[in-house]
Amino acid sequence: MTERQPHGSARPGGRTARTRAAVLAAAFDELDAHGFGALTMDGLAQRSGVHVSTIRRRWRTVEGVIGDLLAQQGTTIPIPGTGDFRQDLHALAEAIARFYASPRNRSLIEGIVAAAAHDPLVGPIVRDVFAARVQHVTQLVHRAIDRGELPPDTDATDVIAALGAPFYYRLLITRQPIDDRLTHAAAEAAYHAARAGTFSRPSPR
Amino acid sequence: MTERQPHGSARPGGRTARTRAAVLAAAFDELDAHGFGALTMDGLAQRSGVHVSTIRRRWRTVEGVIGDLLAQQGTTIPIPGTGDFRQDLHALAEAIARFYASPRNRSLIEGIVAAAAHDPLVGPIVRDVFAARVQHVTQLVHRAIDRGELPPDTDATDVIAALGAPFYYRLLITRQPIDDRLTHAAAEAAYHAARAGTFSRPSPR
Repeated sequence: MTERQPHGSARPGGRTARTRAAVLAAAFDELDAHGFGALTMDGLAQRSGVHVSTIRRRWRTVEGVIGDLLAQQGTTIPIPGTGDFRQDLHALAEAIARFYASPRNRSLIEGIVAAAAHDPLVGPIVRDVFAARVQHVTQLVHRAIDRGELPPDTDATDVIAALGAPFYYRLLITRQPIDDRLTHAAAEAAYHAARAGTFSRPSPR
Repeated sequence: MTERQPHGSARPGGRTARTRAAVLAAAFDELDAHGFGALTMDGLAQRSGVHVSTIRRRWRTVEGVIGDLLAQQGTTIPIPGTGDFRQDLHALAEAIARFYASPRNRSLIEGIVAAAAHDPLVGPIVRDVFAARVQHVTQLVHRAIDRGELPPDTDATDVIAALGAPFYYRLLITRQPIDDRLTHAAAEAAYHAARAGTFSRPSPR
């Protein structure tokens, strides 16, 4: 217990992992109960049973906790592999729609975007979390290229961003529920645009 | 001067209009200088020369001022009328890109989305401002339908939302600069999707 460990190291399933799980679960519950605006370090400490100084040491700010939660939640979206590009896009769109059907996940994304407006440290967290999430899912585009369904010079990141964009526009800007029509249109629009070569890059990166 | 006027009424170009212009200009300057997080009623009063009680009476909150500013700024985006749907979409995308090339306009949208996360009164402002802005620009879609360039049952609002979405995704989520490639792809993607019937509604609304 008194042994010094390098910052951030942890045995999987050990105390550090349990602490993280407890604090992220508490943050998720607090978002659900009171929304992002009411999140405090003390509130997280109280709900998680983890000492506030431990939370502060590990995440520094509420925004740091939310960034970590965002990273954790994002990985729950699976990569479709139906063998067909169009079906994969629909499956991905449906997974995103299911993800944001949860008010907690809506609060999470809205809260983190809000935090980024006020704290210059949060913007990079949002950017990096989404870059990793998009990168992860680009596999379905690469498989479509390999099957000859898309131009070989298609930028996979652009395809996934195009599919995702309408959801965030709906959540953050037009602020209406995500419905089947949006979900279907997001997939179809990305499909037709990609097939038409909209996301081609003349020379590969 | 002592005559009572109904709330919100104003002679065009009169004192009320000048007050509004001064306060919105001050808000725009403050956003540029310090960002949304530093906006206060007192700061707006000081910079605009308008008494803080007047600002508070008219807009109630900083978020109210920003909502009004957002509405005012949005109307500066002109409706393209090139006679060609695809060219119109490119012209609109370029206008949006120019609009958000200004750091002040980036701060404005980021600030208002952040405010919406914390204040339930702001969400409807964002929604209504964008609904009006999108509605305004749908003319170019209706003209394309009239020219036979699009299926007659195309939902014009969906087309404009599809074109706009990638810009807000870039601004708020992936947080990179808006470049020519994004601008071009946003227009092309909306074009191909609309032409393929992605935004058709079986029965007109």
